[in-house]
Amino acid sequence: MKNQSIGIDIGGTNISIGAVDKFGGILQQWSMKMKDCPTVEVFLQKVEALMGDYFIKNRKEIQGIGIGAPNGNFYTGCIDFAPNLPWKGEIPLAQLMHDKFGIRVMLTNDANAAAIGEMVYGAAKGMKDFVMVTLGTGVGSGFIANGELIYGHDGFAGELGHTNAVRDGRQCGCGKKGCLETYTSATGIVKTVKEFLARDEQPSLLRSIENVSSKDIFDAAEKGDKLAMEIFDYTGKILGQSLADVVAITSPKAIVLFGGLAGAGKYIFEPTKKYMEENLLQIWKGKIKLIPSELKESDAAVLGASGLVWER
Amino acid sequence: MKNQSIGIDIGGTNISIGAVDKFGGILQQWSMKMKDCPTVEVFLQKVEALMGDYFIKNRKEIQGIGIGAPNGNFYTGCIDFAPNLPWKGEIPLAQLMHDKFGIRVMLTNDANAAAIGEMVYGAAKGMKDFVMVTLGTGVGSGFIANGELIYGHDGFAGELGHTNAVRDGRQCGCGKKGCLETYTSATGIVKTVKEFLARDEQPSLLRSIENVSSKDIFDAAEKGDKLAMEIFDYTGKILGQSLADVVAITSPKAIVLFGGLAGAGKYIFEPTKKYMEENLLQIWKGKIKLIPSELKESDAAVLGASGLVWER
Repeated sequence: MKNQSIGIDIGGTNISIGAVDKFGGILQQWSMKMKDCPTVEVFLQKVEALMGDYFIKNRKEIQGIGIGAPNGNFYTGCIDFAPNLPWKGEIPLAQLMHDKFGIRVMLTNDANAAAIGEMVYGAAKGMKDFVMVTLGTGVGSGFIANGELIYGHDGFAGELGHTNAVRDGRQCGCGKKGCLETYTSATGIVKTVKEFLARDEQPSLLRSIENVSSKDIFDAAEKGDKLAMEIFDYTGKILGQSLADVVAITSPKAIVLFGGLAGAGKYIFEPTKKYMEENLLQIWKGKIKLIPSELKESDAAVLGASGLVWER
Repeated sequence: MKNQSIGIDIGGTNISIGAVDKFGGILQQWSMKMKDCPTVEVFLQKVEALMGDYFIKNRKEIQGIGIGAPNGNFYTGCIDFAPNLPWKGEIPLAQLMHDKFGIRVMLTNDANAAAIGEMVYGAAKGMKDFVMVTLGTGVGSGFIANGELIYGHDGFAGELGHTNAVRDGRQCGCGKKGCLETYTSATGIVKTVKEFLARDEQPSLLRSIENVSSKDIFDAAEKGDKLAMEIFDYTGKILGQSLADVVAITSPKAIVLFGGLAGAGKYIFEPTKKYMEENLLQIWKGKIKLIPSELKESDAAVLGASGLVWER
């Protein structure tokens, strides 16, 4: 009986591979550095070298291989022009993996994989309608409706991070202005710190730190720093307003927050919830759950990728 | 063989019923006034009186009855507290109709029904991912992803009209401020006319009209009236910006515009398209169709309701 799947998480720095059982238990794990994989051919050889023996030994139990990668396209199975990977152009990764391992291979982008991980093994287990928002270096999202991930007509749906949060707001790396990502990502909140520190003379623990990280803001808030709490309130306001619009469109049962900023716990959840509620239509007030991911951050990407195999 | 369905469109003023073939041809039509249906019981009696003979005669060919109604909930089959209907509270209409006619009955709200009509018979035929936006007295929407309508966890998804278009903008009837509906509905654009006329002394044909309608604005634009064109540009800007965010979330193949304001043709389509394009991520520029509905406005609601029966 097929009762496990292989998940591969491809990132700009690290590549993680895991053999995962149907309950999200990681049976075996491997990892390597992206810098050791200058081409996709080298990557394929290294994957085989790492997990080839395990794969052959357990072939009968493995349902397939799921891969999460930046700009991974579910429909085409290609990684398309990922700016932070050394592999350039259009890489038909699902096909190449299939040719090597002779098994079903599915590919999607990292935020979609996270959503699937949450649905198959985590906080959204059994939910047919929910939204996963990843608050990391950028802001990603995966929308599940009618029990299926929304890929859109081209496989690129779920770019909540590039919806407008502030008209004519901060310049985003994508070329647009005011994208949600420029406010509610790890880098966005650091911009907020700089703006708030420059704005007035309010004393704050954050003044003495050279390169503030989101962890520093959390630590300051824990010590009762008012500016740090104001910064979370401001960030939660922008996120909550956007999430209220998300609810109006897809009416999810829950919104799951994941990633570094979500780790700030009540400091980010409370204001986000408050401003989301303020901006909801009456029919949804008090009814939409805002919950943290239940997947361990270090495992989530591999779990999500492995979950792809079980989704449909 | 089942090759037709009954569509019923329930509105605050009129109720329309049609027997529809699988290609969207209307075989027979009936209508009545809502004021003659003070209770749902009277409504049921009148429906039977109108189409009972036809129904019995064609029973073998009829697949089911689809109903579009304000606040119609697909999951529960109930009309829930519709503010503009005389029937108060929660009306289990699908069940009541089923009890009377002994056939499968499906219910949804009017904007969702319009989306289904477009998918089954109209401009979005064969599309698996598209969005329908109805620009009428209010702004409604229906989202189709993976070939299915997104109802959300409670049946109320698709309230694009109540997403934020302008932060702290116009007061909306829903209690919130700056909802898309307050700018891009028939009533919204009339508010824009008033604001623009009050703003400056610019000459305009619209100055001499007492109660401006969206048709008047269209007529003025046709005659080269600059203010009328500015008003369409402003409205298209707000709509286009919102649609760009819709694309980022669901990546539809097309967005179909329907309803009175969509009838303004190029005056509304051109600015909407222009501002949508300006706000799209690079990957979508030039790729998302913005198209008018292909359903005759007077038939669309009945067709959409009848299409419900064929959707899944």
